[in-house]
Amino acid sequence: MANEIETIDAASLDTLCTAALRAAGARAEDAAACARILLEAELMGISTHGAVRVPDYARRLRGGGIDAQAVPKLERRAPSLALVDGANALGPAVGLRALEAGIEIARETGIAYVGCRASNHFGAIAPYGRAACEAGFVMLAGTNASTTMPPWGGKALRLGNNPFCVAAPGEGGAHFILDMAMSVAARGKIRAALKAGRPIPEGWAADKEGRPTTDPAAALAGLLLPFGAHKGSGLSMAVDLLSGVLSGARFLTDVVTWVDNATEAQGTGHFFLLLDPARLTGREAYDGAMARFRQLIKRTPAADPAAPVLLPGERELARRAKALQEGVQLPAALMAELRELA
Amino acid sequence: MANEIETIDAASLDTLCTAALRAAGARAEDAAACARILLEAELMGISTHGAVRVPDYARRLRGGGIDAQAVPKLERRAPSLALVDGANALGPAVGLRALEAGIEIARETGIAYVGCRASNHFGAIAPYGRAACEAGFVMLAGTNASTTMPPWGGKALRLGNNPFCVAAPGEGGAHFILDMAMSVAARGKIRAALKAGRPIPEGWAADKEGRPTTDPAAALAGLLLPFGAHKGSGLSMAVDLLSGVLSGARFLTDVVTWVDNATEAQGTGHFFLLLDPARLTGREAYDGAMARFRQLIKRTPAADPAAPVLLPGERELARRAKALQEGVQLPAALMAELRELA
Repeated sequence: MANEIETIDAASLDTLCTAALRAAGARAEDAAACARILLEAELMGISTHGAVRVPDYARRLRGGGIDAQAVPKLERRAPSLALVDGANALGPAVGLRALEAGIEIARETGIAYVGCRASNHFGAIAPYGRAACEAGFVMLAGTNASTTMPPWGGKALRLGNNPFCVAAPGEGGAHFILDMAMSVAARGKIRAALKAGRPIPEGWAADKEGRPTTDPAAALAGLLLPFGAHKGSGLSMAVDLLSGVLSGARFLTDVVTWVDNATEAQGTGHFFLLLDPARLTGREAYDGAMARFRQLIKRTPAADPAAPVLLPGERELARRAKALQEGVQLPAALMAELRELA
Repeated sequence: MANEIETIDAASLDTLCTAALRAAGARAEDAAACARILLEAELMGISTHGAVRVPDYARRLRGGGIDAQAVPKLERRAPSLALVDGANALGPAVGLRALEAGIEIARETGIAYVGCRASNHFGAIAPYGRAACEAGFVMLAGTNASTTMPPWGGKALRLGNNPFCVAAPGEGGAHFILDMAMSVAARGKIRAALKAGRPIPEGWAADKEGRPTTDPAAALAGLLLPFGAHKGSGLSMAVDLLSGVLSGARFLTDVVTWVDNATEAQGTGHFFLLLDPARLTGREAYDGAMARFRQLIKRTPAADPAAPVLLPGERELARRAKALQEGVQLPAALMAELRELA
């Protein structure tokens, strides 16, 4: 059964994930928000942030690390500024609440910054980016995370992988969605190498003494390395400033790890910045410019003729369209676990 | 004389640069703004974007590529949104006008987006970041630029090096200033290798057919490579969307190169996003969080005990303090050129 695959349609997977989160105690609204974000990631092929996270979230809901009954509170600080106190609710519930408030604010004023504190792991950012684009807004967003990297030149954990997303709507759903983390490689890839008994490439990680390593076990016990040396290191800090420092959340080493700790609040911070292109150059000029931008990139001669140049998010949106038609493929073991939880 | 160095104090260099730009036809206000941005970069040790640019700007002012008499116009699009039509004025004059408007708007409303179109090369971004920090604001800013890179997977020029800056004020001038371009290495470093007759490291560039090269001449005629593969490529596009598409400026291949073209307008786009931390968590909470953030990073055990971990901008701000005391060192040939221009 370990390698068996089941196919499930999106609506059924949504129902199943929602039920599993409800059974773990989550409020109906929060379970629905969380299932939506995880399902969207799954549809986009970001399976490390898809249905596989439901058991993790359920464990933390049951252990009290996430407060199943908490209700996030929004405080408007200025016409275009708001802060959300996540009250230690489910991360995606906090994130979606903040994004929806940001969209509402940007609809009124053309721009919004919404910072979140006292939140938890909120899933991949691409699903939030797609939602912002569908509503017609450009979005910059990020989150901090528990530490997996040293700052450039250091040999101790200080930085999270702090993903950063820039999304911009394109006509007919052809959105630009860049969602990138700050390490050379994700921990998930290193875990996969460990499982497969393979070494990892040089440059991905260092052991806990800060020495370069290709041993996945030493890497997981040690330090992921930031991509682009000082650049990825600096960007991780910048995302933490925008997510953690500006919102009043925890940051750097104060954010609590979520994977191995089911009982303690993480204190994660996120931010969402929304801009309305219709209030800048106007919708028509914006749409025309985006269409030209897209064409210029897509018509670039490819280094490998079999691999045409893609825009960020293009592959994920194509996968999503296919998964909505054909269903999602998940390991049978995960499906069994979800059914048991539900 | 080629290798001779002269030392000049900041005020005298400012006067000299301003006079050189005035002599090339720039309006007094624009010459002062431009000299200020170039001088600040020089003080910070970003000498590729310092006084050395004055002769380039002067050539474009004289050739008509920059309109010496143009007056940038600001249009307020919403309480927190503005667009600047640069009218093909000096880039740093357009940039400073936009930054100052953004600061004024953020002082009123807590947040501002200002996009610029019809501008030109506007210097390094770190000086704008320092100015925003000195006024108490967090700044995100970027600019597009003429093409030097392919998108990831492509083998033709489509992307500019599109620098991106995130700056956040620290007490006593201890600001966080991340200012990064999107290529693995700057063209300036490749030009230096060519001059010195040295090969460049692998991974920096490809020739014009898209083949990896270590030959600096082939690299300069070819393609710089984005840092972090698809990540740097995606970030370059994101900065272009925020600078070019959202502001109504040119973008991607439509931006005209400035170095080899003294007669044509560039059509560059920039953006400035300002946030007031005092309107979010309050000034005191923000200052406390920044101080802690700074300490956590600076106290990271260093991989090399002789090279302590630094925050982005820390080295540049230390150089600036030293240069204000001791003066700036410039090649005698450049000093002679500036005096002749003035």
